[in-house]
Amino acid sequence: MRILLSNDDGYFAPGIAALAEALSGFAEVFVVAPERDRSGASHSLTLDRPLSVRRAPSGFHFVNGTPTDCVHLAVTGFLGFRPDLVVSGINHGANMGDDTIYSGTVAAAMEGYLLGIPSIAVSLVGRELNHFSTAAAVAADVVRACADDASGAPYLLNVNVPDLPSSAMKGRRVTRLGKRHMAEPVVRSVNPRGETIYWVGAVGAAQDAGEGTDFHAVANGFVSITPLQVDLTQFSALSSWQERLSA
Amino acid sequence: MRILLSNDDGYFAPGIAALAEALSGFAEVFVVAPERDRSGASHSLTLDRPLSVRRAPSGFHFVNGTPTDCVHLAVTGFLGFRPDLVVSGINHGANMGDDTIYSGTVAAAMEGYLLGIPSIAVSLVGRELNHFSTAAAVAADVVRACADDASGAPYLLNVNVPDLPSSAMKGRRVTRLGKRHMAEPVVRSVNPRGETIYWVGAVGAAQDAGEGTDFHAVANGFVSITPLQVDLTQFSALSSWQERLSA
Amino acid sequence: MRILLSNDDGYFAPGIAALAEALSGFAEVFVVAPERDRSGASHSLTLDRPLSVRRAPSGFHFVNGTPTDCVHLAVTGFLGFRPDLVVSGINHGANMGDDTIYSGTVAAAMEGYLLGIPSIAVSLVGRELNHFSTAAAVAADVVRACADDASGAPYLLNVNVPDLPSSAMKGRRVTRLGKRHMAEPVVRSVNPRGETIYWVGAVGAAQDAGEGTDFHAVANGFVSITPLQVDLTQFSALSSWQERLSA
Amino acid sequence: MRILLSNDDGYFAPGIAALAEALSGFAEVFVVAPERDRSGASHSLTLDRPLSVRRAPSGFHFVNGTPTDCVHLAVTGFLGFRPDLVVSGINHGANMGDDTIYSGTVAAAMEGYLLGIPSIAVSLVGRELNHFSTAAAVAADVVRACADDASGAPYLLNVNVPDLPSSAMKGRRVTRLGKRHMAEPVVRSVNPRGETIYWVGAVGAAQDAGEGTDFHAVANGFVSITPLQVDLTQFSALSSWQERLSA
Repeated sequence: MRILLSNDDGYFAPGIAALAEALSGFAEVFVVAPERDRSGASHSLTLDRPLSVRRAPSGFHFVNGTPTDCVHLAVTGFLGFRPDLVVSGINHGANMGDDTIYSGTVAAAMEGYLLGIPSIAVSLVGRELNHFSTAAAVAADVVRACADDASGAPYLLNVNVPDLPSSAMKGRRVTRLGKRHMAEPVVRSVNPRGETIYWVGAVGAAQDAGEGTDFHAVANGFVSITPLQVDLTQFSALSSWQERLSA
Repeated sequence: MRILLSNDDGYFAPGIAALAEALSGFAEVFVVAPERDRSGASHSLTLDRPLSVRRAPSGFHFVNGTPTDCVHLAVTGFLGFRPDLVVSGINHGANMGDDTIYSGTVAAAMEGYLLGIPSIAVSLVGRELNHFSTAAAVAADVVRACADDASGAPYLLNVNVPDLPSSAMKGRRVTRLGKRHMAEPVVRSVNPRGETIYWVGAVGAAQDAGEGTDFHAVANGFVSITPLQVDLTQFSALSSWQERLSA
Repeated sequence: MRILLSNDDGYFAPGIAALAEALSGFAEVFVVAPERDRSGASHSLTLDRPLSVRRAPSGFHFVNGTPTDCVHLAVTGFLGFRPDLVVSGINHGANMGDDTIYSGTVAAAMEGYLLGIPSIAVSLVGRELNHFSTAAAVAADVVRACADDASGAPYLLNVNVPDLPSSAMKGRRVTRLGKRHMAEPVVRSVNPRGETIYWVGAVGAAQDAGEGTDFHAVANGFVSITPLQVDLTQFSALSSWQERLSA
Repeated sequence: MRILLSNDDGYFAPGIAALAEALSGFAEVFVVAPERDRSGASHSLTLDRPLSVRRAPSGFHFVNGTPTDCVHLAVTGFLGFRPDLVVSGINHGANMGDDTIYSGTVAAAMEGYLLGIPSIAVSLVGRELNHFSTAAAVAADVVRACADDASGAPYLLNVNVPDLPSSAMKGRRVTRLGKRHMAEPVVRSVNPRGETIYWVGAVGAAQDAGEGTDFHAVANGFVSITPLQVDLTQFSALSSWQERLSA
């Protein structure tokens, strides 16, 4: 089994190293990841310049591009073969609810899925992030549990692991995405040259975090696994818009 | 009525100028757009540095950030008031089917929607793009048709206008997103210094472009309007994953 | 007479517009300038990606690169002819003393000079910068006074104009570069996410600003003109190093 | 003795690792280098956003900025002490003649010098670059030979080492900078989307490479050491310009 592993924190991040090691127990792992931290890069594809790949002493490859670039480049040309699975992570921090839209970690996995390959995004939820190796083991278990799927149909899973020691981990929950409150306003400040600047503010707290959501599962010590799809059509609203806008 | 207008092609692009003029016929328009072409920036949010805003002689404001940054910054602090509508575009080129995931134009509108404001993304579909002012008039009509919604509930619309003279325009269709074939492989090349480089290849042709899709509407001379939602949960697959992964 | 005009503040900056207009009185002016503010870009040449050129409605061309890129690209391929003169500016702010090493404005002119073309960098010194058109007229006079040089040998001039009304302007002084005190320390701060960040501090005040320097001339209401060269060899120290390091 | 070590190829480059090891034989070495390849960044200082520092597992620190940023940040705030020496390199490739104006490697050392600290830039000259450890040993020898200077006056040295086995190395030469022919024209090309792009061309071959120059020394198997200064004033031309431009 050959796994393409990427992330959005950069090829040097502890999360990807932990996951590479855990996956190596049962698969051949190929790392193609951004050369620097691209958190928040989302689904950005680099169209206005070419990409380059280099190899670090660790054997990991790094690209001067986004997480989506890395998976796109690896699958459609660089690797020279089609991986059986794309894994992205372990992200340093949660990707739950609306985060999935902005997340470079999810974007890397989604790119694999759009290219027809089963793909899994893995994030570690917490502030201090002390349990990367536990999270890596948990993620590797999920990967193995999925990998025996004989159907061959691609899927896209968003996995969030609470930052807990394995003794405190409660098991797995398949969830739907919750929803956050609106983000905090931008923080207006002044730089040392006296110019007004704005920092994007903190993400909102969980709003829809009831039972069944990713937020709820993780808050209760479970690994959250959410199957995702990529069709943004709001099917339930098609007919009412039809009435209003037809012309 | 106060409209925040942004795009991903940059504040100087002909598309945003045409749309600003058309919307000015019935609304107060505030332009906050990227300082340079950020096509493909998707939902990128700039977290690792602050943002600055400048004012062009045209009165348009431009930001050293992404389309999402522009809307986020404008709504959560810079404008000083809450716009009634966010409009993004007119994009130079189509945003249909899977494009919506990568599109900075759609991302800007989606940011407005996530902040609770009705939002509309507008793209011009074609190669030569000769009919910006027709497209702007068409888009302005859609905006006006939506704006009398008394419910106050936010919505997110993805509008694609064929690049046709108004005489050839057939009307409006409310559609679902189609689907593209996989993208072309990366194009391997060598730069003048002899180093291997890779260009992201062309997007795939339409795959699911049957009746009812955005591709089909535009190909037949109609303006395509797709209502979007942002919850990526694949609800239909929750129970089967529950069976497989519960532990 | 054909003049290539560039800057480091971006093609949309008031300084370059004022200078383009003043030079148009006696020369054909071609503007090729950065698409965004690249102050502090120094002599950066973009080697890891290709450059693109676009044309603004004003007729100015803009490049997704540095000031040096702009001049390099224009002279060695884009223009299709060899300009008689390269002018860079009017920069928004001083470029005196050690500033010349960091200055993108000076770098653009230096690139012209290294390509064998007489080149002049122009900067406006002051805080509020109210007198761009006066500075442009003064700079145009310098350009005309230089342009009748029959020798054909390239030269490199660094011109700094005080931000004064023409009535208060005292004339021209040919000067040597002064020297600044060391820059202020970096300003340590914390971003809204709690991470330590550092801002580069303010430049130092003038240290060597005695008679004969650019600082002195401008402080006394004169236009400062400093001829520059680009050989950094410290000839006076060759023999002592020879003694110490020969092996 | 405490040495600040930086470069422009990125903190992960083989050249800086080799030099760090060689210098560790007789000094305490602190590495603060760019997070990614910034070749050609020249003296760029990052003014429009703050800088961040991270620590790699190797103990090296890396910065989201230019070589000049790294030295500036380390000396004026991050290190917390004033290093006795700034060393930059080993650069992957030559920095001779006019290269010194564009070189990020030289810029990093020059920043140390402008901050009042003795500073040395080291580059490896060749195509395949097989002899990093030899070059590191040679550079360490130069550093040691300089370090016993009791005068305390800062100096700036530009060292170029030929890529030879130690058996073929001929000794040291103190040199002046040579001069290159003009760079090759930009290379016009078309990207996969059909847009015209331009690559900056190759640097010119050596033009002034006679005896006494850095080019000549390296071509003959010697380590070239050029003392540099940073005052760009063309003193020899002051009086003739005085005559022409006085007004």
